[in-house]
Formats: sequence, C-alpha cells, structure tokens
Amino acid sequence: MTTGKINVSVENIFPLIKKFLYSDHEIFLRELVSNATDATLKLKHLTTIGETAVEYGNPIIEVKIDKEAKKIYVIDQGLGMTAKEVEKYINQVAFSGAEEFLEKYKDSAKDSGIIGHFGLGFYSAFMVAEKVEIITKSYKDEPAVHWICDGSPEFTLEPSDKTTRGTEIVLHVAEDSLEFLEEGKIRDLLKKYNKFMPVPIKFGTHKENLPVPEDAPADYQPEEVEVDTIINNPNPAWTKQPSELTEADYADFYHELYPTQYDEPLFNIHLNVDYPFNLTGILYFPKMSADLQVQKDKIQLYQNQVYVTDNVEGIVPEFLTMLRGVIDSPDIPLNVSRSYLQADGAVKKISNYITRKVADKLKSLFSENREDFEPKWNDIKIVLEYGMLSEPKFYEKAGAFVLYPTIDDKYYTLEELKEALAPNQTDKDGRLVVLYASNKEAQHGYISAAKDKGYEVVLLDSPIVSHLIQKLEADNDKLTFVRVDSDNVNKLISKDEEAISKLSDEEKDKLKTAIEAVVPSTGYTVQLEAMDSNAAPFMITQPEFMRRMKEMSQTSGGGGMFGMSNFPDMYNLVVNTNSEFAGSILANTDDAQREAAIKQALDLAKLSQNLLKGEELTAFVKRSFELIK
Amino acid sequence: MTTGKINVSVENIFPLIKKFLYSDHEIFLRELVSNATDATLKLKHLTTIGETAVEYGNPIIEVKIDKEAKKIYVIDQGLGMTAKEVEKYINQVAFSGAEEFLEKYKDSAKDSGIIGHFGLGFYSAFMVAEKVEIITKSYKDEPAVHWICDGSPEFTLEPSDKTTRGTEIVLHVAEDSLEFLEEGKIRDLLKKYNKFMPVPIKFGTHKENLPVPEDAPADYQPEEVEVDTIINNPNPAWTKQPSELTEADYADFYHELYPTQYDEPLFNIHLNVDYPFNLTGILYFPKMSADLQVQKDKIQLYQNQVYVTDNVEGIVPEFLTMLRGVIDSPDIPLNVSRSYLQADGAVKKISNYITRKVADKLKSLFSENREDFEPKWNDIKIVLEYGMLSEPKFYEKAGAFVLYPTIDDKYYTLEELKEALAPNQTDKDGRLVVLYASNKEAQHGYISAAKDKGYEVVLLDSPIVSHLIQKLEADNDKLTFVRVDSDNVNKLISKDEEAISKLSDEEKDKLKTAIEAVVPSTGYTVQLEAMDSNAAPFMITQPEFMRRMKEMSQTSGGGGMFGMSNFPDMYNLVVNTNSEFAGSILANTDDAQREAAIKQALDLAKLSQNLLKGEELTAFVKRSFELIK
Repeated sequence: MTTGKINVSVENIFPLIKKFLYSDHEIFLRELVSNATDATLKLKHLTTIGETAVEYGNPIIEVKIDKEAKKIYVIDQGLGMTAKEVEKYINQVAFSGAEEFLEKYKDSAKDSGIIGHFGLGFYSAFMVAEKVEIITKSYKDEPAVHWICDGSPEFTLEPSDKTTRGTEIVLHVAEDSLEFLEEGKIRDLLKKYNKFMPVPIKFGTHKENLPVPEDAPADYQPEEVEVDTIINNPNPAWTKQPSELTEADYADFYHELYPTQYDEPLFNIHLNVDYPFNLTGILYFPKMSADLQVQKDKIQLYQNQVYVTDNVEGIVPEFLTMLRGVIDSPDIPLNVSRSYLQADGAVKKISNYITRKVADKLKSLFSENREDFEPKWNDIKIVLEYGMLSEPKFYEKAGAFVLYPTIDDKYYTLEELKEALAPNQTDKDGRLVVLYASNKEAQHGYISAAKDKGYEVVLLDSPIVSHLIQKLEADNDKLTFVRVDSDNVNKLISKDEEAISKLSDEEKDKLKTAIEAVVPSTGYTVQLEAMDSNAAPFMITQPEFMRRMKEMSQTSGGGGMFGMSNFPDMYNLVVNTNSEFAGSILANTDDAQREAAIKQALDLAKLSQNLLKGEELTAFVKRSFELIK
Repeated sequence: MTTGKINVSVENIFPLIKKFLYSDHEIFLRELVSNATDATLKLKHLTTIGETAVEYGNPIIEVKIDKEAKKIYVIDQGLGMTAKEVEKYINQVAFSGAEEFLEKYKDSAKDSGIIGHFGLGFYSAFMVAEKVEIITKSYKDEPAVHWICDGSPEFTLEPSDKTTRGTEIVLHVAEDSLEFLEEGKIRDLLKKYNKFMPVPIKFGTHKENLPVPEDAPADYQPEEVEVDTIINNPNPAWTKQPSELTEADYADFYHELYPTQYDEPLFNIHLNVDYPFNLTGILYFPKMSADLQVQKDKIQLYQNQVYVTDNVEGIVPEFLTMLRGVIDSPDIPLNVSRSYLQADGAVKKISNYITRKVADKLKSLFSENREDFEPKWNDIKIVLEYGMLSEPKFYEKAGAFVLYPTIDDKYYTLEELKEALAPNQTDKDGRLVVLYASNKEAQHGYISAAKDKGYEVVLLDSPIVSHLIQKLEADNDKLTFVRVDSDNVNKLISKDEEAISKLSDEEKDKLKTAIEAVVPSTGYTVQLEAMDSNAAPFMITQPEFMRRMKEMSQTSGGGGMFGMSNFPDMYNLVVNTNSEFAGSILANTDDAQREAAIKQALDLAKLSQNLLKGEELTAFVKRSFELIK
C-alpha cells in the first residue's frame, strides 16, 4: 500500500477558475470593489481598536477607465499589502484573507461589516483581463510593491514607487471583453452591485456651482468647480435604526431603490434581527394587481451592503416575493441551489422570521389605524390571501387583520363578520351563511335581490378565492360561503318559512310543461319557485358546489383535479310562480305568442347572468329595436 | 524583480471544489454515470478501430444502493484504469482524461460519442460522500488497484483482487446526504439525467414470466425469472435518422419524454446538423393556449445523450421556448451566463438554425398538406405570431405559411388575402382594407353587418394581434386593418358613394339635439349617418387608432407607451337617420316617451358592444320584463 497527496495542477485549475468561478463575467467589478471596500473597512477597524496609529481620514474608492489604453483601474486607500502579504493572499489561490482576519479579530470585527472572500474574488479579474497589475503600499511602514500576472500561473513582483497607502488594481482588458471599457456599462454595473456599499465610490467628475455668497451683487456669476461623482449611497436607510427614520425617509428610499417606479408604497416593514441570525432590510407593500407573475423578483438581496441578486426565492416565503425592498444578511449561503436553500435550517428560520414580522406589522397597522388600513385592503389582499393558503404560520395570524369587505365598503374581520351576520343569516340548521359576489357589475341583479332581502353581501374577487373559502369552511364550524347567484334568493339561506304559491299544483304542471317545451333541456333545469310577486319572473342560477369545484380546478393549474375544469356548466332556470308573467303565460292561449314571451324572458334571464351572446344577442337587440320603432 | 508561479494550495481548493463545483449536489450521480459511460464507449472505440483484442461484448453500467452500509455503487465494464492511470487521472485534480483521449484519437473518436470531462466530474462524489473508493482493473493485462480517499487530500492506493475489467466506484455517503440512499431518489435522478444515455444502466431487478411454450397445456403456469431492470433507453429517437422513423415513432417518443402529458403533438421537426456545429434533436408543436408563460421550459437540453437542463433560454429563440422536445449538442457551452450565451457566436448560429428549420418545416407542412395544416392553425398561431414580432428572420419566411382565417373558417395567406379582398375592399384612396374581429361572439352584431354588406371578416384573436397588424401595415404599402366595430359599416371602407338621407338638414339638427339631451356627453359623440333603413337605429363604435394604441400599450407591459393604457375609452354613438326609429323620434311630441325610447335604444346599442352592465343592466332587464308581462 502506498499513500500520497492529491495534487492540484495549476495549469489546469487556473483556466477552470477563470471559466467557472462565476457564470456572469460582469461580477469581476463587484468582486474588486468589494475587496477595496474590505481593505478600507479593515483599516478603519484597526484604527478604531487602536491597533495602528495611522490616520483613517475619509477614504474613497475610485474606479477609472482608460479606453485608449484598454485599462480599468480600481483604486482604494485601505490597508494595502506588503510584499509578504501579496505572496500570501494573491499568490496562493483560494487563501481567504478575510477568513484569517476575522479569526484573529473575531469579537471586535463582528460589527465592522467586513465583506469576506478576498482571494478567489480577486481572480475573477482574469475573466475579463488578459493581464492584471497590483500596485500596493501597506499601512505598515514597508515599501510598495508591483505585481504583474498575464493570466498564466507565472507572475513578477518588483518594487514600486507608490507613496500613498492602499491598493491599485489595473486590468488590461482582453479583446473579448472590450464592452467593459464603455463608461455607461461600468456605471450601470456600479449602480447595480455597489449602489449601497459602505465606502464612497468615485466614478468620474462633474461640474457644480459654488454657493452664492450672501453679499453677492445681482449679476453675480456663480463659480463653477469640478467635483468627484460619488456613485453610491454608503448609508442606505436599512442600515439605520427605525427610530432615526421618518415615513418620508422610507418613501425616499423606495424611490432610490426603484428609480423608474412612480407609485408610492402602501406601507413598509423594517426588518432588524441580530440573533440567531443577522438580517436587516426594509420591505414595501406596493399596490398589487391580480397578475402576480409580473410583480415578482423586485426584492433585492444584499450581503453587507453588496448587491447579490434579485432572486430571493427560498429566502422570502413565496407569497411575499411580490413585495419590494431589500434584505441584507451575511447568513444566507450563496452559490447554492434553491433546493439546498429550502432545506437549510438557517434559511428556513429567516423565511419564518420574515413571515412573522410581516404578520405582526399588518396586525399593528390594522389595530393602530384601521381607517388608514381599510382603503388599502384591495391593493394588498391578493398577497395576503395567497399567504393564508400557502403558509400555515401566516394563516394562524391572519385572523387579526385579514378583511372581508362588503359590497357597500364595510370591512369586517372574520370574527366581526360572523357576529354581524349571525342574527339574520343563520340558516335553519344553525349554519352561518356568508353570501358573496365575485363581480359587483356582473352579478348586480343577484346582489340587489339579496340586499332587498336584508342580507349583507361580501365582495370576494381574487382569483384564488374559491380555495380560500374552501379552507375557511373547513376550519370554521358551521360556516358556509354561498355566491349570490347560486340559488334563488329565497333559498340562498334556507329558513323555516313556508312559501305560498298563487298557483295550484295543476297550474304549476301546466306552466312547467309550457316552459320546458321552449327552453333547451341541455344546460337548463327548470325549477318553479313561489317568490315575491315583484321578483324577476325568470332567473338563472348556478349551484355553488359544482361552480366552486370548477373554479378551484381552473386556478390549480394543470388539467385540474379530476379534469373538472372541462365539465360543462350547469344552470337552473328559476321560474317565479307568483309573478304576473307566470300568470300571463298560463292565460295565453296563442301558442306562438306564448312561445315568443317565454323566449324573451329566457333571454332576459340570460342577460342578467351574462349568458346572452353572439348571434342570440344580435337577434335579441334586433327584435327589441323592432319593439320601440 | 522576482518571478514566481502562483500556487494553488490543495487544502483550500479542495473544499471549494466540493462546495462550488456544482450548485446542485445531486449532479454527482450524473457525473459518475457519465464517467462510466465514457469508459465504456472508449473501450468500444478502441475495439472498433482494432487497438485492442479484448471482446467488447454487451457491457452495462450498474448502480446499486446498500442502505444498511450507507454505500452507493457505480460499476462499469469499460476501459478500467491501471495504477499509473489512477495516479494520472484521479490524483491530479482537473486533468481531463477525456481531453487527452480525444486529442490522441481525434478523427476516429469524433463520432464515438465520448462525453467528456473525466477528472473534475469524479470529484463531485465528495459533495455527498465522506469517503470514496475506486476499485478498477484495466483492459490491459495489469493488476487491479484499490484507491481510497476520505475527502482530505490524502489517499491510499493498494492492489485489489478484482478480476473483471472495469471500474467500481463506492461512495460512503455522508450524514448530510443520506437522502441519496433512498431507492426512489436514485431512480428519479437516473430517470432525470440518464434516461437516454447510450450504455444500458441497470438499477435493481424485477420478475418476468418466461414465454409460454406453444405446446403448453391449458393450465400451464408460466415460469417466473428475475431480470435486470434497465432504467434507460440507449437509442432515443433523436439519435436515429428521420428515414428510420415513422410518425408513430415520433409520437411514442413524445410520450417517452413526457410521461405525464396526455396530449398528442400537432407535428414534429427533426433537427440534424453536422456543420458548422453539431446538433440533433426533435421539436414538437403542442397545442398552445394564450397563456404562454406556463408552457415554457419544456424543451430538454442534452449533451451526447446526457441531460443538462430544461432551460434553453438563449439557445432556442424565445418564441420557440413554448415548443417541446429535445436538443442534443456538444457545442453549447455550459456553466456560462445567459448573457454570455446570447453573445456567443456559435450559440447564435444554433438559434438561427433552429429558427430557419422551424420556418422551413412549417412551409413544407403547409404546402404539402394544406388540408391538414389549416385546422391546426388556431393551436399554433400564437407562437408564430410572436415569432413574427420577435425574430426578423422568421418574419421574412412567415409569408409562406402564416394564415389569416376568416370568420367563416376560410384560411388565407397574406398574399391570398390581398388578392381575394382587392375587388370589394379597396377604398377610394386605393388602400386595401382588411376588416377583422377579435371576438366572434362579442362582436357578432358588427360582423353580421359587415358580412351583409358583402365584406370578408378576418378573425384575429391573439393577445398580441395589435402589434402584428401594426407591423404588417408598416411593411405592406396601402394595406390597412380595421376592426369591424370601429366605425359604422358604411364608413369602414370609404368609397365614393353618396349616402342619401331621408331627413332634411333641419330634421337632422332636431334629431341630434333630442338625442344629445338624453345621451351622456362624456364618453359618447353622437354621429348621424344615412344608412340602410334596415340597419340598427343606434350603434356604438370605437375608432380603430386609439383603441389599437391602447391595446398595444396594454400588452407591452410596464405602464405602456405614453401611459396610454390609462386613457379613457372613447365611443361614437352612430344614429341611422334612415331608420324608422329616427323618424318616430322626430314625430313623437311626448317628451317623456321620446326620452324613454332614446334611452332604450342607447341601452340596446350598449348591449351589442358589451357595455351595458351592473345597475344599468339590472334596470334594463327589469324594465323589459315589465314590457312582456
């Protein structure tokens, strides 16, 4: 038996790092600016804890392009490196400087916001550069050094005459990456990845007027000066304490995050947790529309103020991915698969925390200022209803703030709704019947009938509402939801009331026979009902159960359960036996006239249920014009 | 100046490889089975070209789980390795064995389907295993060896008593990866990644009955035997020549690809190209619905029969990502960003090739069997229309097969349509007017009126149709599209015909005044027209231009151009001065009666344009019931 040590051959691993380190080449800039930030913050930390006597000052990071010479510069005023450190951190690939630093200054470094993976990140420079130079002078009193490497494993190291502290990285951009020499491209990348990094980043200069002196004459020409263009906001709102921020600050930050978004957020939730994981952030509720897909992927994920991604799937519970804002956490593992994220305990805790925070905030918004909360309900309900269906922990808390608005814009919580409806809408079996409409316009006739009878009608118009009421019924004893057009108004809530019919049984039979002779038997079941004589003579209803099952299977995606979404619609034609019209049908002995009257009544009933269309509607309109000429 | 060589320190790179090599840990199985396939195909190649005298036979690959001992085995009967080769290929990380092999046998190996990246792939085993063993015997007459490594860079190598040719990999599964000891999990992974790999893969056994002998007695009990369960199809349809396959074979393969998909594809396109890139595959047109989002990500991408991904964004032009099927190409770079893919020349060529092939196939399907093509049009049009808008090369070819169906189910190409309409639908300025409807039912009244006048009406009901006709108008001189409800039927196509009005100018003024007194001025502009006396007395139209611009901005996403999607709808109320109704309005001296008649006529016009809703509809129905009682 022999033993040995696996050898990693540099010639082979180097191109692999180049190719695989990041799938997106543009990341090089984020990595280099992160390293520069890192080096600056490390110096700050050392000065803060008194480890060095050097002056920290007001260091910035500068990014420069020399298009002519095909070079990009990233220059910091941070820690710098000695020749020994270059050997250690740069020449030894995958030696993480930050890790060692963190180990050494563990406790004191914790809060200094050190970013993290110096070493490998630097090599991402070779994704876009054919040659890279490092000119660096340490904060320690040691000579500056100049390192040059052309992407092969060979490098040269020589003394440099750099006199100022810090590190200057020079990228000689490769022919296949010339796009990165465009000013607009680099500005966009800095804006994307470094917009909120904690050290000011200079990219170019611009002209500004000096302030006008108080005693200036009327024709004073303000003096123009060249000033640095700082591309980032080093102190974004989420890094501050909620107590330092006003509502206007939150709104301003929303527009800073989304410069092309002109809406105002409805409300915000400031996240701030230290233990058992570290997470800060601000989430905003925007106005939601029913089309949820297009609204996803707006939340931005940061690590210590460095932009990582706008895909927070797995980190934020799915129903909240429709929100906007930022989340900043060093505790979210990167570069791992979504399925791994979802299984990871720490990430699950973060997701649960966010769910809980959102629920708590909604509860306090509702209870502290109900007048302000209610008008916003329609803009947020879709997210919350979706959350109730997908997150059990959210569902548990939802009772405290989820609202059920009536047609007349009263807003009830579920408990309030139960209390309000109990006296008038409890049926003979003791079940509380919540009448609802899914469309105020389309179901107007049915809503009016229910209201005339003194019932409250709740407006539930989200696309997923059939699933929600199914769940509410399952979890609330003796509670049932019935849509206003699912039966005639006398039967929506069954009570022990005897309906008195003006017609004898014999007359009823005759009426039914006459109607069934005209109405198509496929699709309609004729039902005679003794109703108020002023109620509509004909009315079309669609039983709750089948319709709801169909809707549920349509919104479940796929073919739907049991293929129910393909079931034909089933309707009842309710005939009011106490209406004058019923009497006139019975009395009419002219077959053609009677048939025409029944057809017209059927058309009118169809109109109320939005079922009169196409050729039938054209014929109806034509016939009706005839009547009024 | 000093020079040196960058050093990759193994202790640091090894955990990195473990962590970053693939974001999805399950990939280890694909990699190990790929290596096994590779080793088998290499042996086949050597026997084929006479480089070795060993018998190739019918080698298989076996995957086994020993749940008790927490081990997974991957066993092949391929090339095997000598101790020297283990040293070279395994102990030197990132030394690609396949690359060297390909270099040596360049020309002859080209078609042997060798997969490719032995070396790094093997190390993915450490993503799930705490210890890995390799027991291997080369096809050369050398002793077998046994390599063991526990994930640190140290390994041991000792002689083994293995007597059969090939390599056996033994994974000692780590505690955090025990899920991979589940039979169901491994079967799913084999089905996902290795379903069509070119060497048979055994995973377990099952029982089968031996065939019943011909002379068997009636009570013969068939003999049961244990047979290997082969989990893959080593010869999938796309690897064959189109001439070897029947339509039924294509349909069978569709169901093999999508076992849970019960529909039949409408037609298929077999892709097969050698130069300048290598690509095979079969694309299927399924029935499309208007909701394109849910239908994406069904095409599977393979490399030499190894499943890679179902995200073909950037490789397949976007409008074709709604298709289904497989694409197999070794020439598509993996592990690179989408933006890189889109910029890559080879990938762009592949994308263009696919576009061209699809266009050519559609053209031949249409020209060779138009009767079969036309009925499928409605199921595919959305994809093709989208393609016309997004791919200029596709748009150029689309004239040959894109159809414009009429309301009466006649199907025209654009050229045929122009020819058919020219005699009757050219306006006084020489422009050809294509009348269209977007909804057969909702615009029925308007369609009837146009047809009564002898016009053809084309049905264009895709959600993106406003963009398409805008483009067609721009590219076709003197061609214009007008929706049937955008003007009164006399004006849809302006001709030099003098309309004769029964009313004097004075009567017209009086009529207009009477109507404007009743009709709300916001939303409706009253227009008097001398039309056929049988045409509807009142009709509501919506001018083409504004409506189309609104539709275009609604389907463009965002707030739409110029925020036009928020513009209010603008309607004209067209009054037929030659109708009997117009006469009766003028004649009626009872103000209340006249007002009621105008209101009723307006309601009827609204009904035809689906504008009578909610409270207005309820009142209309109630009033109409009064009339017939």
